[in-house]
Amino acid sequence: MKERIKTFFLGRRLEDSELAGEKLNVLWGIPVFASDAISSVSYAGEEILLVLIPVLGAASYGKFLPIVAAIIGLLAILVFCYRQTIEAYPAGGGAYIVANDNLGEKPGLVAGAALILGYILTVAVSACAGAAAVTSAFPALLRFKAVIALALIVLLTWGNLRGLRESAVMFGVPTYLFILTMLALIATGLIRYMTGGYTPEEVHIATQSTNEALLFVILRAFASGCTALTGVEAVSNGVPNFRPPQQKNAKRVLLAMASFVCIIFLGVSVLISLYRIVPNEHVTAVSQLDAAVFGGGSAMYYAVQVMTVVILTLAANTAYADLPLLMALMANDGYLPRRLIFRGSRLNYSNGILFLFGTAAVLVVAFRGDQHLLLPLYASGVFISFLLSQLGMLRHWLRCRGRGWRYKAAINGFGTCVTACVLVIIVWMKFLSGAWVTLLTIAALVVLMLGIRRHYAAVSEDLQVDDPMEILRAPRSGKAILPVQSVNRSFLKALNCVRDIGFSEIELYHVCAEEESARRLRTQLESLDIQATFVYDVTHLRDTEEVLMRHIEAENGRLGPHEHLTVIMPKLVVMDPWKRYLHNQTTHRLIRRMEKYRNVYVFQVPYLI
Amino acid sequence: MKERIKTFFLGRRLEDSELAGEKLNVLWGIPVFASDAISSVSYAGEEILLVLIPVLGAASYGKFLPIVAAIIGLLAILVFCYRQTIEAYPAGGGAYIVANDNLGEKPGLVAGAALILGYILTVAVSACAGAAAVTSAFPALLRFKAVIALALIVLLTWGNLRGLRESAVMFGVPTYLFILTMLALIATGLIRYMTGGYTPEEVHIATQSTNEALLFVILRAFASGCTALTGVEAVSNGVPNFRPPQQKNAKRVLLAMASFVCIIFLGVSVLISLYRIVPNEHVTAVSQLDAAVFGGGSAMYYAVQVMTVVILTLAANTAYADLPLLMALMANDGYLPRRLIFRGSRLNYSNGILFLFGTAAVLVVAFRGDQHLLLPLYASGVFISFLLSQLGMLRHWLRCRGRGWRYKAAINGFGTCVTACVLVIIVWMKFLSGAWVTLLTIAALVVLMLGIRRHYAAVSEDLQVDDPMEILRAPRSGKAILPVQSVNRSFLKALNCVRDIGFSEIELYHVCAEEESARRLRTQLESLDIQATFVYDVTHLRDTEEVLMRHIEAENGRLGPHEHLTVIMPKLVVMDPWKRYLHNQTTHRLIRRMEKYRNVYVFQVPYLI
Repeated sequence: MKERIKTFFLGRRLEDSELAGEKLNVLWGIPVFASDAISSVSYAGEEILLVLIPVLGAASYGKFLPIVAAIIGLLAILVFCYRQTIEAYPAGGGAYIVANDNLGEKPGLVAGAALILGYILTVAVSACAGAAAVTSAFPALLRFKAVIALALIVLLTWGNLRGLRESAVMFGVPTYLFILTMLALIATGLIRYMTGGYTPEEVHIATQSTNEALLFVILRAFASGCTALTGVEAVSNGVPNFRPPQQKNAKRVLLAMASFVCIIFLGVSVLISLYRIVPNEHVTAVSQLDAAVFGGGSAMYYAVQVMTVVILTLAANTAYADLPLLMALMANDGYLPRRLIFRGSRLNYSNGILFLFGTAAVLVVAFRGDQHLLLPLYASGVFISFLLSQLGMLRHWLRCRGRGWRYKAAINGFGTCVTACVLVIIVWMKFLSGAWVTLLTIAALVVLMLGIRRHYAAVSEDLQVDDPMEILRAPRSGKAILPVQSVNRSFLKALNCVRDIGFSEIELYHVCAEEESARRLRTQLESLDIQATFVYDVTHLRDTEEVLMRHIEAENGRLGPHEHLTVIMPKLVVMDPWKRYLHNQTTHRLIRRMEKYRNVYVFQVPYLI
Repeated sequence: MKERIKTFFLGRRLEDSELAGEKLNVLWGIPVFASDAISSVSYAGEEILLVLIPVLGAASYGKFLPIVAAIIGLLAILVFCYRQTIEAYPAGGGAYIVANDNLGEKPGLVAGAALILGYILTVAVSACAGAAAVTSAFPALLRFKAVIALALIVLLTWGNLRGLRESAVMFGVPTYLFILTMLALIATGLIRYMTGGYTPEEVHIATQSTNEALLFVILRAFASGCTALTGVEAVSNGVPNFRPPQQKNAKRVLLAMASFVCIIFLGVSVLISLYRIVPNEHVTAVSQLDAAVFGGGSAMYYAVQVMTVVILTLAANTAYADLPLLMALMANDGYLPRRLIFRGSRLNYSNGILFLFGTAAVLVVAFRGDQHLLLPLYASGVFISFLLSQLGMLRHWLRCRGRGWRYKAAINGFGTCVTACVLVIIVWMKFLSGAWVTLLTIAALVVLMLGIRRHYAAVSEDLQVDDPMEILRAPRSGKAILPVQSVNRSFLKALNCVRDIGFSEIELYHVCAEEESARRLRTQLESLDIQATFVYDVTHLRDTEEVLMRHIEAENGRLGPHEHLTVIMPKLVVMDPWKRYLHNQTTHRLIRRMEKYRNVYVFQVPYLI
């Protein structure tokens, strides 16, 4: 029954051999890896303006474009750096692998934790931003924003549990469509502006007077805008997915992707600046721009909004594809629960998918679907993984000293310095609004992962055996205890069973509230004429369970080093779940409690009603 | 640790012998049994007016007192009837016992279900009415009304779990204090009115025009007021608690209690009428009267409110004393889960107390602490138990025909007619506003209790054995299956164990994804030189658990009628609860799944990390 419901929702169980991967060329590689990076365009510019406008008012637009330019410059540097990672790690060089390889266990774990957090936030932020695109188009839905974000996450989880084939076409078509609609938006917007078809209203914004130096405001805005860079590292993780020449194709995709991000981000930012868009809580900046260019309610307006939701959904989907893989890798190294290694019935890492679903959903609910509150947590985590990745590459070149290592080390060294500076800016500017949560979470995750690793190491050492013959020994008979309440069929079945197996000594043990009842039972048992001793305890505290456990504990204490004791537990089995409540779960609880005695074995004899 | 926390909150475990009951004389008997009945005064009058005023406006007061008089007349009849129950059932004659004895199983269950519902509602209604008394005095607390009601219930639950000694003094002093404050209120109010110290404001109330006949309005008001009669039957349940002459004392207490209810109810109602009190949502009628008589904010005002909360708390406490006892009685008859029979560490029926807590708390939360919504559910249930009790008594006299049986039968016959008429009125008038819930719940409970009874009967018949020797048989050896993943310490311990016990055949069973791994394991096992066969299955669907279960099922199918199979389950035991998550709970799950095979025994060998 359970299996049938599962099959209905997820499809049939797949054979191991059905695990197949498609190899990508440049054309289809771009959309697969670019959705995360390109989708950031839909919120990054808005984040910058949200910092600038309350302080600078209409003067913000003068600072806006230089900040965008700085971020695009940063993007160029990262592209150069990651080209080198692609070269050095043809099997895929995520921050966890690069940091672990070159910097050691703890930096590796920090990078891993930052990545895990980053992927979770990718899903939460993308879902919320997607919901924002919906509510911008349909303001009546505003109070359901968190619900819409959750619905997107549920849909993604279901799709991924079913095992969405990540076909290149499925990703490619919508991504290219998004790029095209954005280019159309930019082109139309520029033409309308230049032909004078649109005159922005004069913006009169009440600014808050502040003592903050202008530099700080600009740094805060820059830190907010750095969310545009999330997802840049994706290509370097996925080198093995490309058709040969793998590394060359990967580099081309990286460059093309960066170009698209650059064009769209710059174009949209210029338009926002020209059209004097003022972001507000209810309508996103892109939606306002969209309405200004195409006219709210026009077909093209809705097309842009729809494509924004789609690209954000695809961005979240990359996290669904990558996080479970990363967690399986880390679980394989012993840092995460082992259940993350196993593939589910549809060959995906179902436990990782469910983990991602749970954490992202909690974030969306806790932050009530507000991406503006989630984004400060996001950028700091991403830049920690960037920094460790760069530092790892620098160390890599310094150690292996291949052809042209000085040049390569210089590039990654530069990358290290730049990402370190940016990270410092982000943490400094965003500390109170969220970066502290990121840092604390990463630290806690690292401690947890080290603990998990220690536990698994201890277990594996404990189970390890050099010479099995040393442990195997000659058979030795032992004593059995059979608790008895009354002479009924269940007890008699257990008694038959204990005699079948043949113990050297059988003890029938009884707990009662009155001596008298024990005496009656003794007479009954004597008439059965079996080779067994009868032992009983009297309690007036109605704590049969405790008395039995104390008896077992005492017997356990009396055991010699290589002796053992078997407790026979007759167990009433009721098949209807609701009827189970009508019987005390004492037997079940006792069996669990007896686990803790090393030399007490429990023999469970079912009696089906 | 768990035991220590329990001891801290509940006190030490008590010996069976510490169960002691105090015997009551008339003076202290009144408060113990009267709190429930007397406390109804604090809401019954208000309920009547809440029906009358929206329809009749200022004319309501003319109909109010006649309705109160009718209810007091009804009270007198019930007192006469219950005096006879006291006489016939010296061991205590609750509606369940009387109906079960005289009318048979199903009427008994209906009465029992009505009583269970009645007790739950006593707690919920009293807690809400107590909270209303608090919020009337402190209107700022109005939005916390449900929380205050819940807090009262939590307090009562805790006290009763600890095993409140129901000392007569603890009940007596507050009850007499309540009676005194109410008498003071009535006396002061009458004097102030007669000396002209108070002139009621003219009441101008907007009435809703309605097509309802006046008779219906009055009947609805009467039905609402019948909640004043809840708790009248309490004395007849508790006859054994009195000092000899038990029945005489019980009758005296019943009479005295009824007199107090009569005086206070009548007095308060007259005052409400004279002072033209108009109940509203925020302040109870009694609180308004209290403020009018003593002046809001005066010490006496607060005294009346405090005593009202106290008496309502005591009323709820009687349900905590009586419902678990009733449920233990019914569980003993097999109609309720058996766990309700056992006394907890403090000698109280802790499971019953927790049940009452849970259900009353749910009601308070669901109805947001509004007693006006709960009361329509209350009266219909109470009158069902009254009716069945009277009908049972009538049948009793008709059957046993003792001295003066005609006279006695006539009284209970009259009681039956009157309660039947009232029940019809209540159900008719309150059907849509709640009585349908009561009727449905009672019906559902009866069906459930019959199902429980059937289940226990089936189990007991199944376990029943006439001649144990027929079932005992000569020992017969069987086969053991030991699942193996790799040769580690846990497996070797289980292997030692299976050889200690001596089975006729040992099978080592392995599930793997590749033939190759099975072959390696076979070589390893062969080198151990043990008498065992090695069997393996290959699966490419990553469903080891299912494959193992299918193997066991197949082996089980091959068993002859008297043969058995033992599955040895090595079980990794991790003591830290948080570390348990790091290991798949496969073993645990498999053991539970194997329960369903009648002849498969499970032998659990713990391996402690």
